[in-house]
Order: sequence, then C-alpha cells, then structure tokens
Amino acid sequence: MIVEMRTGASETEIDGVVERASSLGLDVQVNWGTNKTVVAILGSNTGKLSSDLFAVLPGVEQVTRIMKPYKLASREFRPIDSVVSINGIDVGGKRFVVMAGPCAVESEKQLAAAAKAIKDAGASILRGGAYKPRTSPFTFQGLEEAGLAMLLQVRQEFNLPVVTEVVDPHEVDKVAKYADILQVGARNMQNYALLIEIGKSKCPVVLKRGLSATITEWLTAVDYILAEGNDNVILCERGIRTFEDSTRFSLDIGSIPVVKKFCHLPLIVDPSHAAGHYSLVPAIAKAAVAAGADGLLIEVHPNPKEALVDGLQSLTTSDFMRLMKELKPIAEAVGRYI
Amino acid sequence: MIVEMRTGASETEIDGVVERASSLGLDVQVNWGTNKTVVAILGSNTGKLSSDLFAVLPGVEQVTRIMKPYKLASREFRPIDSVVSINGIDVGGKRFVVMAGPCAVESEKQLAAAAKAIKDAGASILRGGAYKPRTSPFTFQGLEEAGLAMLLQVRQEFNLPVVTEVVDPHEVDKVAKYADILQVGARNMQNYALLIEIGKSKCPVVLKRGLSATITEWLTAVDYILAEGNDNVILCERGIRTFEDSTRFSLDIGSIPVVKKFCHLPLIVDPSHAAGHYSLVPAIAKAAVAAGADGLLIEVHPNPKEALVDGLQSLTTSDFMRLMKELKPIAEAVGRYI
Amino acid sequence: MIVEMRTGASETEIDGVVERASSLGLDVQVNWGTNKTVVAILGSNTGKLSSDLFAVLPGVEQVTRIMKPYKLASREFRPIDSVVSINGIDVGGKRFVVMAGPCAVESEKQLAAAAKAIKDAGASILRGGAYKPRTSPFTFQGLEEAGLAMLLQVRQEFNLPVVTEVVDPHEVDKVAKYADILQVGARNMQNYALLIEIGKSKCPVVLKRGLSATITEWLTAVDYILAEGNDNVILCERGIRTFEDSTRFSLDIGSIPVVKKFCHLPLIVDPSHAAGHYSLVPAIAKAAVAAGADGLLIEVHPNPKEALVDGLQSLTTSDFMRLMKELKPIAEAVGRYI
Amino acid sequence: MIVEMRTGASETEIDGVVERASSLGLDVQVNWGTNKTVVAILGSNTGKLSSDLFAVLPGVEQVTRIMKPYKLASREFRPIDSVVSINGIDVGGKRFVVMAGPCAVESEKQLAAAAKAIKDAGASILRGGAYKPRTSPFTFQGLEEAGLAMLLQVRQEFNLPVVTEVVDPHEVDKVAKYADILQVGARNMQNYALLIEIGKSKCPVVLKRGLSATITEWLTAVDYILAEGNDNVILCERGIRTFEDSTRFSLDIGSIPVVKKFCHLPLIVDPSHAAGHYSLVPAIAKAAVAAGADGLLIEVHPNPKEALVDGLQSLTTSDFMRLMKELKPIAEAVGRYI
Repeated sequence: MIVEMRTGASETEIDGVVERASSLGLDVQVNWGTNKTVVAILGSNTGKLSSDLFAVLPGVEQVTRIMKPYKLASREFRPIDSVVSINGIDVGGKRFVVMAGPCAVESEKQLAAAAKAIKDAGASILRGGAYKPRTSPFTFQGLEEAGLAMLLQVRQEFNLPVVTEVVDPHEVDKVAKYADILQVGARNMQNYALLIEIGKSKCPVVLKRGLSATITEWLTAVDYILAEGNDNVILCERGIRTFEDSTRFSLDIGSIPVVKKFCHLPLIVDPSHAAGHYSLVPAIAKAAVAAGADGLLIEVHPNPKEALVDGLQSLTTSDFMRLMKELKPIAEAVGRYI
Repeated sequence: MIVEMRTGASETEIDGVVERASSLGLDVQVNWGTNKTVVAILGSNTGKLSSDLFAVLPGVEQVTRIMKPYKLASREFRPIDSVVSINGIDVGGKRFVVMAGPCAVESEKQLAAAAKAIKDAGASILRGGAYKPRTSPFTFQGLEEAGLAMLLQVRQEFNLPVVTEVVDPHEVDKVAKYADILQVGARNMQNYALLIEIGKSKCPVVLKRGLSATITEWLTAVDYILAEGNDNVILCERGIRTFEDSTRFSLDIGSIPVVKKFCHLPLIVDPSHAAGHYSLVPAIAKAAVAAGADGLLIEVHPNPKEALVDGLQSLTTSDFMRLMKELKPIAEAVGRYI
Repeated sequence: MIVEMRTGASETEIDGVVERASSLGLDVQVNWGTNKTVVAILGSNTGKLSSDLFAVLPGVEQVTRIMKPYKLASREFRPIDSVVSINGIDVGGKRFVVMAGPCAVESEKQLAAAAKAIKDAGASILRGGAYKPRTSPFTFQGLEEAGLAMLLQVRQEFNLPVVTEVVDPHEVDKVAKYADILQVGARNMQNYALLIEIGKSKCPVVLKRGLSATITEWLTAVDYILAEGNDNVILCERGIRTFEDSTRFSLDIGSIPVVKKFCHLPLIVDPSHAAGHYSLVPAIAKAAVAAGADGLLIEVHPNPKEALVDGLQSLTTSDFMRLMKELKPIAEAVGRYI
Repeated sequence: MIVEMRTGASETEIDGVVERASSLGLDVQVNWGTNKTVVAILGSNTGKLSSDLFAVLPGVEQVTRIMKPYKLASREFRPIDSVVSINGIDVGGKRFVVMAGPCAVESEKQLAAAAKAIKDAGASILRGGAYKPRTSPFTFQGLEEAGLAMLLQVRQEFNLPVVTEVVDPHEVDKVAKYADILQVGARNMQNYALLIEIGKSKCPVVLKRGLSATITEWLTAVDYILAEGNDNVILCERGIRTFEDSTRFSLDIGSIPVVKKFCHLPLIVDPSHAAGHYSLVPAIAKAAVAAGADGLLIEVHPNPKEALVDGLQSLTTSDFMRLMKELKPIAEAVGRYI
C-alpha cells in the first residue's frame, strides 16, 4: 500500500503512519520527496487490509493499493488455467462449451422441446430457472421445486447436464441435488451468505458478474467460494449497467482479456441478458468466442412469443441452430472447437 | 403500453398485436399513422405486464410502458405522505430524524460511547451493524448475535431505538427481536427472499437503494415488502455507482424530489457511504436536509482511527456534534426541526 | 410522440395538447383510457420536434418519442448499406479494412517505419495525428502543420491513404488537403461547428463516438454532416465511459449490431483507446471482427517505449503483424476478407 | 509516481525503470518488497508526465500517480479561495450569486421580460444563449449575432451583467465584446482550442463540467485557461451522465466539497440541466446552496410553454420568485447572503 502524505505533513504524522504499519507487522519504506513524503507499506498480505487503516491517520492525503484485494482467484496464486469438469465436459479447455435453454422452466413439454433442440444444435449443457428473482412481485416467480423436478426428468431423458439458479442460502443443498451446476445471478453476486453455502457444497457454480460490479469486486466475491474449498467456479460476464439504453446492459467485452490476465478460472459469456433483444444476441455471441471466452450461456425457447419470462431476448430453436453453425468456424479460427 | 409497429408492418402483424391484447383482456386503440402504425394498449394493470409480451410479436419495432411497474409504493395508490412511527418518533413528519452510530458494533464500550455522543448531539436513533456483508472474505464480518445483544443492552441504557442490518431471510425474526428498525443494505435491495420475509415480519425497515438501481427499480422492490402487508418502509438514498471516483459513490441528490413526486414513503439519506471520506460528509448531509429528505443515516465512531470497518467515512463525535449544530438552521429554513 | 396525461387530467388540459399539436400541423388521436388518457401525435417529422413542446403543457405527465431524432443516418431513410470509397478501398464492403499507425506523428522516420510495417502486415490505411487534443496543457500537443507534411510525404512514399484528426472548424480545408480521411475525435463528436465544416468539405470522415454519447446521439450528430451533403461518413466505436477501471474505456460491443440495425453507414472499431493497454487490444480487435464491424482503427508504433503519446496502448510492429494473421481466419469465418 | 513491478521482475527490468526516471531528471527510491518491488518516482513535476512512460517498460505491472495532473487550479498552487469579480459582483465571496434567464435568446421582448423578473427576484446576472449547440441539426440553433445584440441592449436597460455561451474559438473576441462572462458548455469542456482563446482573452468565464468528465479532468481543463494568464474562471457543476433516467443528468452534489477541497476557484451549480424538469429544479437548487456552492446558473423563461429550447426545465418567473425567497434563509443558515 502506498500512503501519500499531505504537502507539509509533520514528522510526527509520518511517524504515526510508520508506527501503525509496524503494529500490524508490516515493513515500511519512507520516501522523503521534495514536495510530498510517500510511505510504502510492504508485505504479501497487505491486500487483505483495508486501506482505511492508514487513510484515517492525520496528515494522510491518499492511500493506494498495490496488492489486489483478491487472492485465491488470482493468477499469482495459481498461474495455470483452471478447468472445471462437469460430467466429463471440461469448461476452460479446448472445447468451447455452450449452455442453452429457456430462462424459466415453464412445463416439462417446453423444457423437453428446448433440450432436444439445443442438443441437436450442438450445445452440451441445459439451462433453465426454477427460482426466478423478478423485479416486480406481481410477475411470474418460477415453478420452484416442481421446476427442479422437471429439470431432473429432462436431464435424464436427454443425458444433458443441467445448470439452474439458486437464490436462498438455505436452499443450496436442495438445488444441488437436482443440478449439475448452480448459478448465482447478477443481483446475488455479493450475497455472501449464499456464496459461503455454495462454497461448502463443493457443487460447480456459475457466478455471474454483478451489474455494477468492477472486475476486482467480482474476483474478490469469488474468493468467498474458493475460501470454503470449492474450486469449481465458472465466471460469467453478462453485461454491466451504463447510460446506453439501446441494449439492456452493455456487455463488457474487455472483461474477457482482463479476467484471463489476472484470474485462472474459466469464463463464459451470457449474450442474452446483455442484448435484451434476440436480434442482437448473435453478434455478441460471436464476439465472445473471438475474444477468448470459454463458453456461452444463452437463452433459447421453443416458442418465445409464449414465454413467461424474457421472451424478447430468447432465440428460437431455428435461430439457435443457425447461430451454432456460425459460431463453429469462429471457434476454429481462435483454436477451439464446439 | 404503446406498441410501435415497424414501417411497412402488415395488417396481419397489426392484428396479431390487437389479438394478443384482447386475449389478455386489455383494451386497444390503433393509430394508423402515415409512416408508422401505433397500437395503444389500455387498462389499469398494464403496469404488471411484461412489455416483452408484445415486443416479441412480428412487425413490432418497440414497446413503451406508460404505467409504472410499481403500484403500492406510488402516489397514485396513496396520494398523501406516509409516516413511519418508531417508538413515538415519526419519520416523514415535521421532525427531521437523525440516525447515527458506528458502521459495525465492535464492543459494548464502543457502542455506548457512540450512543451517548449521538444522543447528546440530538440524534434520535442509534445505528450499528452486527452482520456486515464485506467485499472480501478475509476482513471482519461483524459480531453477529453477540453484536445484537450489545445493541439491546445499549438501547435500554440510553433509551434509543436501534436500526441494524439483516442479510439472511432466515434471520429476519431473530434480528427483529433485537431491533426497532431493520436495515436492508444496497447489495440486498433485490434480494427478494429477504424482502418478502421482512414484509411478513411487519417490522419497520430502512430499504437502501441498490448501487446501480434506477429509482423505478427501487420503488418496485418496495412493492415486495408492501405486498406482504408491511407499510413501515423508509427509503434510503446512499449514492449510485458512476465513473466519478473522487467520492466512493455519487449521491443522487435529484432522487429526493423524484421519490417525493412519485412515492408516498419517507426518505432518508446516508451521506457517509456516498462520501467515503469524513471530510466530505457534512456538505452532503446539509444538501440532503435542504433538498427535502426526511432524515439522515450517518456514521459516527468514538475513535475512527481504530474502527474495524469504514473508519475513513466515520465522523468523530465532536465532528458530529458540530454538524448537528449546522444542520439545525438549515432544517428550519426548509420548515423542519431536528 | 405519445403524450401521457396525468391521472385525473381535465378535458381542458387534454384539449390543450390537441390544440398545440394542431397548431404545429400534426395529426392527433386521443385514447381515453380508464385511468389515463394518452394522446398520440402523428406525422413523419415529429422526430424533429422537441418533446418539451408538449411536456410543458398543464396536465401532462410524460412524453415519449416514437420517431427517432435522426433521419438521414437511419435505415428508414436509406435501407441498403452505404459504402465509403477511399482511393479505391471500399469501407463497408466485403473487405475488412484495417487503418493503423501511431497515435501521434512524431517524426518522418517514425512515421515511415510505421507505414512500412503496417503495409507489410496487410493494413490498407495509415493513421497518425498532427493535432492532438490532450487532457493536460503541459503535455505534447502534436506537430501540427509540420506533422501534416510528414503524413503527405509518407503517404506518397508508401502509396497508403491517410486518416488524421481535425479539431478546429477553421482548419478543415487545410487538413483535408493533406488527408484522405478526416477524423473527428470522441471529445468533438458534438462540436457542431466542426461537423458542419466537414459536411461542407465533402471529405470522407471517421466520426468517433463520444465517450458518453448514446448511440442515438451519435447518429443524430451524423445528421449534421449528412445534412450538408457529405455522405462519406464512417462511424467509429471506441469505448464508452463506465465505472469499470481495468480498461481505459468499456468497448460497447453491442453498439455494432445496434448501429447496423438502425443505420446504413459503415462502422469501424478502435480497440486501442478502449483497451488502454496493449495486452488487451488483440482480444477486443478479434471481437470487433466477429461482431460484424467493417474495419479497425488501431495504434501501432515502431517503438512504443519512446512514444510521446499513448505508448501503453500501442502495439509493436511485430505484435501487429501477429494480430493481423490472427484476424484473417476470423474475418473469413464471418464472410469477409482482409 | 509509483511503479509496481510484476512478481518476479528481474533486476534488469527494475534497472530499466530507474534509468528511465534518471534520464528524465527524476529522483527514485526502490522498495525491494518480499513479493513485489515498487519503485517510487519523486519530483514536483511528475504530475505533468504521462504514466505511460513507465507503464510500457518491461516487467512493469501498473503505475499509479501521486501528483495530480492539474497544477494551476490546485489548492497546493494557491491555498486561499479565489474570487472572480464581475462589474463589482464578487463570485466566491460571502454573497451567493444567482445568474438566471432563458436558455436561448428568442426576442428582445422575451429577454427584457426575463431580465426584469430575475432582477426583481434578486438575481444579479442575466443568462441567455445566442449560439445554441443542439443535438439535432433540424432544431433551432440560436439567433447568433442578432441575439448578442439583444443581450447588449437588455444588459444596458436593466444594468445587469450578462453571461452567454461561446462555441467557436474564432468567435471568442466577438462574443467577449457583448458579454461580461463567457460560458463554455459541457460538450466543449475539452475543446482545447476554445479554452486557449478564452485564456488569451482574459474575459471571465463559466466552465461547465463535461457530462462524463471526472473532477480531475475538469480541473485539468481549467489549467488550459489559467496557463494563458486568465484567472477569472468560475466552475459550474451541471450534472453527469449516469444510468438513472428520471432526471436528465445526475447532479453530482459531492463535487462541491471535492472541488472546494482541491481547487481554489469559485463554483456554481446549474440545477436546470441536471433536473430536466422544472418541478425538480428547486430541490436541487436548495441542495447546492446548503452544500457550499458559490452561486447558481438557472433557467427562467417568461413563458416556458412557448420556449424554443429547454422549456420543460425552465422556471416561470413566479416560480423563480418563490424559489429565491426560499433560498435566502438557507444561504443565511450556511453563513452567506443572496
């Protein structure tokens, strides 16, 4: 941590900073600048400390972190790429993994139609929500446990692993019984009680980025899961909130190389929630493949006109079929296969 | 809802929209424009419907909502101001209500020192967190139930109502036993399981705005609590995430007149989390009073240098005493008293 | 335009809206809803009118635009793709066009080295700035006319068309004498005096998106140039300002399909300014190709360590050579060639 | 500047950083951390250097500025408050200065009506735009020189100093002949050619914050004017672009204490452009007074329903009269007078 003293800070004030650091067992180097004195606080675990500890001291102008606040998710902790294995499907390897299906499970018939279509098109994991956190209390909230049972049924019929959302820390074990991968939605990225329970469950998990979370905050949230001993974390970029309103969210394509640079975990992209409109999904999906994502999480509905949730951003099964054909040569162009 | 057809949309496509509306029991008026046909979907509960229902239909360019998606929180539902009464203290009345105290309960001694100071300065409700959702898993997470017990102790000693955060839906009843007001933090604004439990508890609640929630989303989240029969909701503006980084968040001062225009509930402001630095808190607190907020939620620590959480944004007791003196004439200038 | 009246608006107030519309020669249809009356204002040029004209009238709650505020840039005005031809190089056709070179012209030697390298790698247009709008007045501001002369020299030596920035409306003609394409930087996107002069000059122009401009504002700014009779406009997405700080700006990948949907003009992407760091440029460049952009504008410097401006985001010539090789198969995968 | 080396950076790489600093005449201190080596670059003018100079070097992970990039605008350069005097009216002193009038000059009659009303209400400076940079080329662009003449006429009739916008660097001298204060709009905050001409003119200027400019960028833009010897700069906060859409922009109330902390110049607030709707203007205006602004720039129109520009955000003269009465006790509560 770099502690910048105010111009004209007294020696007593500088000593105060040095003593605070020493009392925490940290090494210190003082740079007596001509205008400003700068104190460098050294040590490998300064990332865990709040910079406020120094910023509150008299004579301090500003404190800047050098060490990142996340540790277990970092490449410094684990330099090589992590791979998360789901029933033999490796996420983070050479294969580009497509997870697809309806936003919400509505009926066994709807889910089976989706499963058949996405499997035929080459997707390898089925998505479908049984618990739906909705903006308004007056809209459809999901089929809950009945929806989970349908997922299990269709999972077995089509031999497709299943990813589904969990929203309540006390339901992690129950949902994990039905699902191959748990999903944490953007609005729960910092629901730490939930992250800790998922950490304990050891179940593979897709952690979506919060809609206004920085990449650093996202990777720090991952540490909550890793710290409980669950290494099976897949990150999912799904767009951030900005001033632009022609898309539902702004997909942060730059997050792909940034996450790959600083973090060892696999990363997939959800183009559907970012786009908000089916006509914009293919371009974003293609960009994600080219930029180096490890997979996609994409909404497909056998009949979007009748969808109870997010119909506008869902691809039809024929649109999805066409998109999968278009994605294959792009994946090959970047050294992957679907 | 206003459904705008694409230029050149066919009669069949327009009929499709009309039929969809009719099947939902809604009235329709079709405006055959020279360039574009526009279909108005009428009815008092169109606010509850997803605009996707029409946006997915063939020939539709765009759908615009007219009715707001929230209902119970709106002034149309209840035109006069609501007042939330806490042990005889009315939030939303003529009195400007100040809630103050440390971010986190650290010890009974710390809490008592804060309680004494804020009471002497004229604040009427004590704040203090026992459960702390922290960005990093390696930092102090709160004293949990031991902290609640300290709050209860100090509450009785100083006869000060207490506001404290709850983070887990399954702990609402427990926390409500110790607290006079529950607090929902910004990161939990859309934790619907939590909102529903608080709704059922009927306990007064401070609902902080999510750091990237629009005002419309915030008021729609309120409907989750009101729909369960709990009318004791106090809103709290605490700053939104923007590109500006000289403050921790950007306090949205405009949200005060906007909320007052569209919603009947009382609204307080948390200047501490927005500012991020104690030196910036007083100016924001004063602005909140002048703009018409009903109260403040403000961080005060007897010794910020030793604070375990958010020391940098906490006022010392003497700074708080001075601020309270400065706030009084501003409150009077806008027809309130502290 | 859709004018939503307040609940309980009087007939007189509704008549006021109707009369205002009639006085402007517009057609009107009134929807007498059960809760709210909605007045639809019809006519093909309502896009040119300010919605304030109606929003200020008594009894009006809100006004929503149906027609977009831009006209000449829209697909409704020109349904087929426009192609801008630069010395025989078509931007917006099957060929994916790469413009590359240093941020600033520093010397003829530097520029010639860059030109040779980018031509060898397969780029077809040379970029280089002679006028540099810099954040601080104490930094290098460009070589100005001497820099233009170097551009001309190198342009002839290597037979490469040149794109360079113009910042002052009174210098448009001068710069247009040296350059094949003018560039308008993000900070000047709404410098209307400049846009009008460029419109008059008829010189091809790259119009960068403002760093906080919506796509709608960007396309409306284009209308300033088109309205003067200059159809040779190439759009350039270069990232928008958001809260994320791990990249310099957040490239809005979704803008590519959105612009293509609503606008007929060619669109290129500047991955360098968005990334801010050379290591992040290739992933964003690849994404842009896959998402359907028509070209790239990319910073390449023969010796980034010695660059006077933006060295950190410049690719070395060998990095650029490698990137071009990687882009080719992606371009082919989406039906283009480089 | 603090240069953080990558974990495992070699001695050669560290030496490269040290040599680069030495070659620029800067002092250096190297902190050999256990995990990371950190090099502090010292010297009073490192603020003027681009951090890229070091960030591009091999082995460097990240570079952090300590010195702010602006200098002449900083409190370190001038610790005491600057006052800008306009015909005997001090901006930045005890008096809270209100500038008011129509967005655009439409006619002498309109302007005179506005001038009379604002003077009666206690405002001391008249605003009115003759050059209007408008989003769309098809809307009213201002009366230009005819408007300036009207301003001059009304200025003399009512003995009110006048503030008006200038948009073209080549028109600074002309506009300065008519106006007491030049205004630079938000979209021109980084139009450096314009800032330099205004700097040379020595005419007092209101510099609005760019709609997506950080405070640091804003103060750095000020340096362009100050560096030319023009000290008569008044800053104007007018709202920033965020995701919130219930107001036109989000007024950054926190910018008031931040600017006051780091900069010596007077600061006024434009509540009209931030609000976008007349009903929201008073609350924001009051907040600005309470938070410590030195004045207001506010839109008042004798007949907003007929306004050619921004009618919706303009106060009527009677609303303005009422607001001024309400502002006075707030100003007194913070030790000012109007």
